Amino acid sequence: MYKVVLLRHGESQWNLENRFTGWTDVDLTEAGIGQASGAGKILKEQGFTFDQAYTSVLKRAIRTLWLALDEMDLMWIPVERDWRLNERHYGDLQGLNKAETAKKFGDEQVLVWRRSYDTPPPPLDPGDERCPGNDQRYANLSAEQLPLTECLKDTVERVMPYWHETIAPAIKAGKKLIIVAHGNSLRALVKYLDDVSEEDIVGLNIPTGVPLVYELDENLKPIRHEYLGDQAAIQAAMDAVAKQGQAKK
Amino acid sequence: MYKVVLLRHGESQWNLENRFTGWTDVDLTEAGIGQASGAGKILKEQGFTFDQAYTSVLKRAIRTLWLALDEMDLMWIPVERDWRLNERHYGDLQGLNKAETAKKFGDEQVLVWRRSYDTPPPPLDPGDERCPGNDQRYANLSAEQLPLTECLKDTVERVMPYWHETIAPAIKAGKKLIIVAHGNSLRALVKYLDDVSEEDIVGLNIPTGVPLVYELDENLKPIRHEYLGDQAAIQAAMDAVAKQGQAKK
Repeated sequence: MYKVVLLRHGESQWNLENRFTGWTDVDLTEAGIGQASGAGKILKEQGFTFDQAYTSVLKRAIRTLWLALDEMDLMWIPVERDWRLNERHYGDLQGLNKAETAKKFGDEQVLVWRRSYDTPPPPLDPGDERCPGNDQRYANLSAEQLPLTECLKDTVERVMPYWHETIAPAIKAGKKLIIVAHGNSLRALVKYLDDVSEEDIVGLNIPTGVPLVYELDENLKPIRHEYLGDQAAIQAAMDAVAKQGQAKK
Repeated sequence: MYKVVLLRHGESQWNLENRFTGWTDVDLTEAGIGQASGAGKILKEQGFTFDQAYTSVLKRAIRTLWLALDEMDLMWIPVERDWRLNERHYGDLQGLNKAETAKKFGDEQVLVWRRSYDTPPPPLDPGDERCPGNDQRYANLSAEQLPLTECLKDTVERVMPYWHETIAPAIKAGKKLIIVAHGNSLRALVKYLDDVSEEDIVGLNIPTGVPLVYELDENLKPIRHEYLGDQAAIQAAMDAVAKQGQAKK
C-alpha cells in the first residue's frame, strides 16, 4: 500500500482579492503563509515524511512547499518543479475580480467558465503581454503547449501525462511523495484517482493549505483519502471556495 | 564566454558561535538571512539571471539559495541538491567551539586541522550518533562515501566529480548557473578553476553571502573573477574568517 499527499497552496493575494489568477505568479498572503506552515506542522505531528516533492513553477505553490518542508526539517529532499502542475490557465479573465466579472457577464456565464468541464474562458490575445510565451520559465515549451486559455479538460490533459510518466513510477518505486499544486491541477489528479465524472469534478472544492492524503493499493487505486486537520474548519474552507464566483448581491 | 556564480551561505548559528560545523545541519542567523537576501538583491541589480541552481543538502546553503532566488524572482528555476557540495566533514570536532578547541589542543594543532590540505581532524567514532549514516538524507550513499572526517583533499575528491559530471556540462550547454555551497566545497572549486596550490588554497577565505562571479573561456578556464559588492567590506569579512581558529587571548 502506498500513500501520497496532495496540498493546494495557501491563500494567495488574488484568492484574497477574489481575482482570477491562473498562471499569474502572485504570492501568498500572510494567512497563506500560516496555512502552509500549518500544513507542514500537522504532517510532521502525524509522522509523515517525504523522499521527493513535486510542485508547479508558480511561487504560491513553491513557497507553500518551502514552508511545509521547513517545518518538517525536510529542506534537503529533491524538489521537481513542472509547469504541468500549474493552475488552470484562465485566459483573458486573469486579473479580473470574480464578483465584478459576474456582474458584467452574469453569474451564469461565470459559473460556466468556472465550472464547466470543457468550456474555456475567452483566450488571451496572442499579442497580450500576459501570454506565457513572454515568460522565461516557459521558454522550453512548444507553441502547442503554451495555453492562451484552458478549460478543466485541457488542464487534465496536461497534468495526467506528468502523473503517468513521473509521479506514478516514483510512487511505485516506494518513494514517499508530496505534490503541492493548485485547485484545478489537483482536481485533475483527484478526478483520475477517484474516477470522478466530468459533471461532479467541477463541483469538488479543494481547500487551500490542507494536506489531502491518499492511500493507494498496489495498482495505485485509492483505498481511502482524508484531509488532515480540523474537519469542520476544512468543510467551511471548501464552502468558501465554492461561493467565490458569485456576484455580491 | 561563460559566467558562473559561486555563493557561500550566509552566516550560520555556529559561524556566530565560532563552532566547527561541518555536516551539522545548523540554520542561518538573522545576519545570515540578511546576507542571503542581499546577495540576491545585488545579483538582480547587476542584471544576473539563472537557469539552474546547485546546492548542498544542508539547510544553511539551501535557505541562502531560497532567499536569493526569492529576491531575484527566480523561485521557479530547477534546483539540484547534492551531498557532494556539502561542507567539509569536520569529524569529531563538529560542535566544538573553535577558540576552546585551540585552548585545549593548542593554536598550532587547530591550525593544522583547519588549514592543512591533507591532515583530517580526529574521526567520529562509528557508533557516534553524529555519523552521517544515521541521517536519512545520506541513505543512498555507500559506506565508502560516508565520511567520519575529511581533510580538504577529501572534500576536493568528492566535489570535483560533481563539477565534471554535472556542473561543467551544464555550463557548456549554455546554462546560467548559481552554486550555493560552503567554505570548503567552494575552496575545492576555486582550487581547480584557478589552479591554486595545496599550500595556498588553505589560506584562501571565501566570505559568507557574497556572490563570487567567474568568467570562463570556452574550455571553462577562468578569464577573471570578482566578488560583487563593497570591496572593503568583503576584505574585512575574509579577514574575519581567517581569524576564527585562534584561541581568545
